[in-house]
Amino acid sequence: MSSQPAHPTLLIPGPIEFDDAVLQSMSHYSESHVGPGFVATFGETLSMLRKLFQTTDPSAQPFVISGSGTLGWDLVAANLIESGEDVLVLGTGYFSDGFADCLRVYGANVTELKAPVGTKPQLPEIEKALSEKRYKAITVTHVDTSTGVLSELKELSALVHKVSPDTLIIVDGVCSVACEEIDFDAWGLDGVVTASQKAIGCPAGLSISMFSGRAMKAVQARKTPPAAYFASMKNWAPIMQNYEAKKPSYFATPSPQLVHALHTALSQILSKPISERFAAHKAGSDRIKKVVTGLGLKQVAGNPAEQAHGMTAIYLPEGVKGTDLLPILGKKGVVFAGGIHKEIATKYIRFGHMGVSLLDPKRTDVDHALKSLEEGLAECGYKKP
Amino acid sequence: MSSQPAHPTLLIPGPIEFDDAVLQSMSHYSESHVGPGFVATFGETLSMLRKLFQTTDPSAQPFVISGSGTLGWDLVAANLIESGEDVLVLGTGYFSDGFADCLRVYGANVTELKAPVGTKPQLPEIEKALSEKRYKAITVTHVDTSTGVLSELKELSALVHKVSPDTLIIVDGVCSVACEEIDFDAWGLDGVVTASQKAIGCPAGLSISMFSGRAMKAVQARKTPPAAYFASMKNWAPIMQNYEAKKPSYFATPSPQLVHALHTALSQILSKPISERFAAHKAGSDRIKKVVTGLGLKQVAGNPAEQAHGMTAIYLPEGVKGTDLLPILGKKGVVFAGGIHKEIATKYIRFGHMGVSLLDPKRTDVDHALKSLEEGLAECGYKKP
Repeated sequence: MSSQPAHPTLLIPGPIEFDDAVLQSMSHYSESHVGPGFVATFGETLSMLRKLFQTTDPSAQPFVISGSGTLGWDLVAANLIESGEDVLVLGTGYFSDGFADCLRVYGANVTELKAPVGTKPQLPEIEKALSEKRYKAITVTHVDTSTGVLSELKELSALVHKVSPDTLIIVDGVCSVACEEIDFDAWGLDGVVTASQKAIGCPAGLSISMFSGRAMKAVQARKTPPAAYFASMKNWAPIMQNYEAKKPSYFATPSPQLVHALHTALSQILSKPISERFAAHKAGSDRIKKVVTGLGLKQVAGNPAEQAHGMTAIYLPEGVKGTDLLPILGKKGVVFAGGIHKEIATKYIRFGHMGVSLLDPKRTDVDHALKSLEEGLAECGYKKP
Repeated sequence: MSSQPAHPTLLIPGPIEFDDAVLQSMSHYSESHVGPGFVATFGETLSMLRKLFQTTDPSAQPFVISGSGTLGWDLVAANLIESGEDVLVLGTGYFSDGFADCLRVYGANVTELKAPVGTKPQLPEIEKALSEKRYKAITVTHVDTSTGVLSELKELSALVHKVSPDTLIIVDGVCSVACEEIDFDAWGLDGVVTASQKAIGCPAGLSISMFSGRAMKAVQARKTPPAAYFASMKNWAPIMQNYEAKKPSYFATPSPQLVHALHTALSQILSKPISERFAAHKAGSDRIKKVVTGLGLKQVAGNPAEQAHGMTAIYLPEGVKGTDLLPILGKKGVVFAGGIHKEIATKYIRFGHMGVSLLDPKRTDVDHALKSLEEGLAECGYKKP
């Protein structure tokens, strides 16, 4: 039974519903950011992140920094890229556009390979692009939260290693880490940036990332200093290394409460084999998508092989408005998100199904949401085929 | 009686001890960052910040962004200053040095007017510096947390307005906002950046700032775009304006839990006249400094007119090591901080006395700390004169 007061179930693609133990950790008593208790907590948290990302390479470097997930883009853009260097951005929607904007702010010369809404750039065109120019990095939005399109990292990474081996492979994993498989070492990734409030299941406020030894070398090898101060990996790397070695260290004050909550969330995640977590998200997502399809609804991500497992972006049926449906769902205690991709924003809704709402067998969040969706559509005059 | 488990009393100059209601707010159930409930909470929080900073000028703009206090330096450096512009940094210690470093990262041409340890630059030399060059901005660390030196903002601001009226007046208020008087409008300040975990009394994780209409115009008038993405005031200003108008808006996901905690902290602060809060910190600080002096100890900030009211930096007596004294205090349940100013780091300790530890009449934190300090010094072999 939840210690939290009754509240609408938050089923947007982040923030998600949080476990009670995680929320309790948020109200941890105040500790010094350089005291032995918190230093141990932070150090363990960083070590647990290595397991979440499935990396055993000691040269890989985790970062946990106060900020929104967006700060991860600045980490990449201000540290891995120098002004004038070329970056290939795989365009999947709102969030890949944002990453491209951020890269440009720090002087990157960005080439966007844009796919039509609801799809992703395909391997042959990526291979062609990589063969035409020497890119310092390629960025891919693992799950574009604006469309629910899933990118295939393993095959993409193999391609990049084959045709452009010096290109750093950077993943925006904000809506994928802890619900989609990411095998950092085996796939040869160079950077994954994410946030706390999605499948990791910790309240918003932490930028979480993992960079390869190769990426860290690229930071050290810069001809110019990092182009940001708070987002400087050079400023933060020694701090993270010290915390993980259980040594106090200071650059800017971390949030002990958020780090405690992340520690709790990661401890829960790692209490079972991580492969089971990915499989459970896939099975839950398959079930949800089957019901959605059964209701006669289409997904923004049309190709089943390109559908994310932590969220479903659903086109509204002809004649049903999101501004009518979402408040009806709200009255039933279900909070879905509206559209955000500018080309289709009013035409679809988004259903997030990550973390405890899907995994906790005591919770009926998903069943209630699916039932509410069917009822809500009917109340909007929709007749399923 | 506290709902928190027994724990050592955190009396470092931030993070401070937090009120139970604030910590409870940290475990608020999950809400959408664009849902009406949280939008109202965030909007009220921004409006309350105007009261905390004593500004009624509608063109002034508050910001609350996930990040450490350090992010406030990036806000200033990446938005108010363009590459090659001159900035005068008043050098008071570790934190003014950090601000200068941050400004340089974004291309500012920094002149540091450094004062000897434990003092601050004096008005005549500041006037001289301002008359020698046209500075885009002057920065002052209101309380340098490394030394406990307090800068006089009112007189400083009057001087700048007189001799260099176009120069933006920027205050690092990390260790001063909510314990030292700041009269934003009346003093003609252009920017105050601070953090949540000090005298405001909310856990770490939020960069909090206020900028004048003049500063916001300087951002709009830039010849080049802001030099950061996550720290771009151009990206955030419309979001803050929308939240304050109770309209949902999105640039990057804020932390609903931290904003709830900030809302609770600000509600508590503003439940009494803010002048009483400043007076109480002054009275409490005077009492602490009297006891410290009575113990025969000297402060790093030697001039009583230049001593902060939310912290006291205390030189260790001859023969007493911080590495001996601090663990002894820890065993007595009192956590003080070590030194951080590189010239004198091992020679002093820091006692933070902000927020509930000083103001809550049910708490005996300060008395216990002073008693423990006296006992601890005796255990280290110190005999008071």
